[in-house]
Amino acid sequence: MTSKQTRQATASEAALLRIFTLPEAPHSTLSQIEKNLSENLMGFLKENIVAVEKPLTEIEKDFQAHQIPASPSFVSDYAEQMMQTLIAHSVHTSAPSFIGHMTSALPYFVLPLSKMMVGLNQNLVKIETSKAFTPLERQVLGMMHHLVYGQADDFYDNWMHSANHSLGAFCSGGTVANITALWIARNRLLKADGDFRGVTASGLLSALRHYGYDDLAILVSTRGHYSLGKTADLLGIGRDNIIQIPCAKDNKVDVVKMRAAANELKARNIKVIAIVGVAGTTETGNIDPLNALADLAAELECHFHVDAAWGGASLLSNKYRHLLAGIERADSVTIDAHKQMYVPMGAGMVLFKDPQLANAIKHHAEYILRKGSKDLGSQTLEGSRPGMAMLVHACLQVIGRDGYEILINNSLEKARDFAELIKQQEDFQLVSAPELCLLTYRYVPAKVQRLLKQAVLDNDLNKVSQINGLLDGLTKFIQKRQREQGKSFVSRTRITPEDNLELTSVVFRVVLANPLTGDDILQQVLEEQREIAQQDNPFLPQLLTL
Amino acid sequence: MTSKQTRQATASEAALLRIFTLPEAPHSTLSQIEKNLSENLMGFLKENIVAVEKPLTEIEKDFQAHQIPASPSFVSDYAEQMMQTLIAHSVHTSAPSFIGHMTSALPYFVLPLSKMMVGLNQNLVKIETSKAFTPLERQVLGMMHHLVYGQADDFYDNWMHSANHSLGAFCSGGTVANITALWIARNRLLKADGDFRGVTASGLLSALRHYGYDDLAILVSTRGHYSLGKTADLLGIGRDNIIQIPCAKDNKVDVVKMRAAANELKARNIKVIAIVGVAGTTETGNIDPLNALADLAAELECHFHVDAAWGGASLLSNKYRHLLAGIERADSVTIDAHKQMYVPMGAGMVLFKDPQLANAIKHHAEYILRKGSKDLGSQTLEGSRPGMAMLVHACLQVIGRDGYEILINNSLEKARDFAELIKQQEDFQLVSAPELCLLTYRYVPAKVQRLLKQAVLDNDLNKVSQINGLLDGLTKFIQKRQREQGKSFVSRTRITPEDNLELTSVVFRVVLANPLTGDDILQQVLEEQREIAQQDNPFLPQLLTL
Repeated sequence: MTSKQTRQATASEAALLRIFTLPEAPHSTLSQIEKNLSENLMGFLKENIVAVEKPLTEIEKDFQAHQIPASPSFVSDYAEQMMQTLIAHSVHTSAPSFIGHMTSALPYFVLPLSKMMVGLNQNLVKIETSKAFTPLERQVLGMMHHLVYGQADDFYDNWMHSANHSLGAFCSGGTVANITALWIARNRLLKADGDFRGVTASGLLSALRHYGYDDLAILVSTRGHYSLGKTADLLGIGRDNIIQIPCAKDNKVDVVKMRAAANELKARNIKVIAIVGVAGTTETGNIDPLNALADLAAELECHFHVDAAWGGASLLSNKYRHLLAGIERADSVTIDAHKQMYVPMGAGMVLFKDPQLANAIKHHAEYILRKGSKDLGSQTLEGSRPGMAMLVHACLQVIGRDGYEILINNSLEKARDFAELIKQQEDFQLVSAPELCLLTYRYVPAKVQRLLKQAVLDNDLNKVSQINGLLDGLTKFIQKRQREQGKSFVSRTRITPEDNLELTSVVFRVVLANPLTGDDILQQVLEEQREIAQQDNPFLPQLLTL
Repeated sequence: MTSKQTRQATASEAALLRIFTLPEAPHSTLSQIEKNLSENLMGFLKENIVAVEKPLTEIEKDFQAHQIPASPSFVSDYAEQMMQTLIAHSVHTSAPSFIGHMTSALPYFVLPLSKMMVGLNQNLVKIETSKAFTPLERQVLGMMHHLVYGQADDFYDNWMHSANHSLGAFCSGGTVANITALWIARNRLLKADGDFRGVTASGLLSALRHYGYDDLAILVSTRGHYSLGKTADLLGIGRDNIIQIPCAKDNKVDVVKMRAAANELKARNIKVIAIVGVAGTTETGNIDPLNALADLAAELECHFHVDAAWGGASLLSNKYRHLLAGIERADSVTIDAHKQMYVPMGAGMVLFKDPQLANAIKHHAEYILRKGSKDLGSQTLEGSRPGMAMLVHACLQVIGRDGYEILINNSLEKARDFAELIKQQEDFQLVSAPELCLLTYRYVPAKVQRLLKQAVLDNDLNKVSQINGLLDGLTKFIQKRQREQGKSFVSRTRITPEDNLELTSVVFRVVLANPLTGDDILQQVLEEQREIAQQDNPFLPQLLTL
């Protein structure tokens, strides 16, 4: 059964063991490779372009092999190959002209720290495999909890490191954070009761029978993030039971309509599990009236969750945190540190007002997560997890409240300046003004703006529809061409502008989170879009001859 | 509204922008900090100790502050502080004497690559924020699919990069992989049908009504991973509906009993969603009879999932992959690359036999994941995700099949050797022999072994129970003290040994995945345990005077 002979170190085996052994010399091959990789990466990050344009189908040719290669490769050869095929065709998410998504620049000190984090290879599911990382993660959650809820000192002294309490849950991102929050809300609502063992043990069918509800629902605005639909699917609630309430013209949920919907559900014996407030919608960056939603949740006796995955970072600004007033009344709040907190990808959090909340999803196992332990894994959706909280911890300390104050304020004010700049252009139309640092707009020649305005006044749906359709084509054309040119990147989405006879339009979407994005770049973005609009396309000529 | 004045670069603002700006000189402060951190990390990793022992409550004192500090810190000060408070009190998961968990050594080349990955900060949810990382991830999934299912070339040519197909889903770990697989199984079973819009849209209650089932169930052995209970809770199925089937004495599920349970459920109109086979149980490392389970799943017309989170890596050994025979008949398979594939934490996967399978959980959103795109996010539980697949890609290329063959074979054979070594000791008892590289054992003085054997023969439950209780106390004492001494670490769990009158016992649990763990270390582990057994404790004296 055993075979000591075959375990004699052969030459290839010795080579293999070397890769697990610490490189001794500062000038080892690995150090050299690291230096080359760093230089290549820095070279890539220094060039202010979004990406070398190459069609995806071309890139795929470098990733065709479907068999794991038989022979090992030299690390140097592999690194060389990746610089050509992967780095060169990555997206330069930290470029100052990459203003299309919430992924932005990173402070450079996170790079050596992340290498350290990976090297330590801690597993946060359990203290036995993470030790000091566990109190560190609890501290990060405590600090973020304090940012949102601002409880008194003894609150944190009592609960931050308590085995049976959680001020939040760290996870890979906002989607898992939202799922966790609503999973808790569902389980608290359908808790054990007398002989009934709760939805946790007995499932949704028995739970609805026990409590006598005909169905469940979650209320959120039409601007809620798509992860909520995924959550409803996963939790067995069903996507159709995410009741989407229309927004007012300011892209904030209409609370009167939400209350009416809740009453209507109640009449149908459908129980509302939770109301979700959006604090920074993905498409327009607006914040729901959180205090009014908190009032409604209290009336309905349901869970109040705020999805502040992106907007939550604005709480770090004393000047602007009033925009999120009422968030401290939420039972749970999602915040992604990898959005405007400038932490690398993979750092999501959900915070719980009540430190007992997460007990609704608590679980144990004999070989891990024993009862009474401080293991973080007993209250998380994920199991094994890396020590990403360390990078949040680092940013909170190194940047500090004062640093974030400047970063967030500049970002919001840059968005206001850009909105002004757009308004000054006669051939651009600001579609949604920035409440945080996100805005939408489109290119509309002055003449067409006048035509559109008149058609709206005339209530001429055909005409508005015709103009709108051509503008959609033009906006898509500009956005794609600009991305292909590789100098800058804005994203696009579909929203319903004011005064558009309820018609949905394609718009440019800009997120101004990168501290290095200057006014000059924003001007260039508009100039480039104006130039592209004149390039060969069927839309502009038709618009101009209307 | 705008405020250009406040955006004038002040001194502190300039300092802040610098941290987002590339460090120019090779001898910059950041380079120096990185060097210090690396040296400290290497120093930590070089010492063959598990961790400096310090009570958790002491460590927590360094992580007490609950307010984000107002003033920024220097990176150098922060790094210095972390070396003292965090690194020094981390768990040395890669130490050759850390043989208690599945987290093991890393090949050092992943460190520079991971720094590059973090620096590029790609978001794999969408091609616009990941570009070449998307085909790279699809290739990794293709290679892993081929490892499990070994389909013909044209299968991979057709589906690996197809927009409407997925050979698998990458995720943060095995728990999310298992959830994804069973979510798909549930949604396929309760799919849209005529006017019924499917469980996805309408929820579980409507779905069960439509299909006329009284409830749902999932079948798995008593050794199934705790993530399955979490999955049942999350999906609304209920933990009690995870039907745990007893194992035979070899810790493999008893398929006769599983078939009987399935028939009994059918009689009660409870539909089996899925059978889960375990390929490498967490506690004993055994593999269920996968072919027999595949037959049963076919009979029941249900989904067959294999949780090979840990054992799946053994497929990389041509010599031992026969141990997992039948895995290629599974509809879905979970494999964690961060276990025995030597990839850092955060690299889980679920593979789908049928490339259409994941369409059961497909979702779209206007600003992201447009229909027909190759965006990976439309079929994953998580939303924003880092480019961890790159590190799996790197290991597959740099280690290669030949390299993994040696690593896996050595690991399995080392476990067999260690089992032999334990058997040769008169005061140790091997409790479960290794099928892969995991085994369990306990310290039982020779005299006590004889007493226990006799008590079992006499069917004297009181006596067996008395001895067993004392042995449990002793095993726990040894395990904790060994961990505290910090030279080596084995874990412990509770299982039911053969010939123990069905009584559960505490045992040492060892995973021999680290390529650097030598025979000498294994001998030392036993010697240390023997020594600790003699130290001041109430259990050994009582056992010896029985």
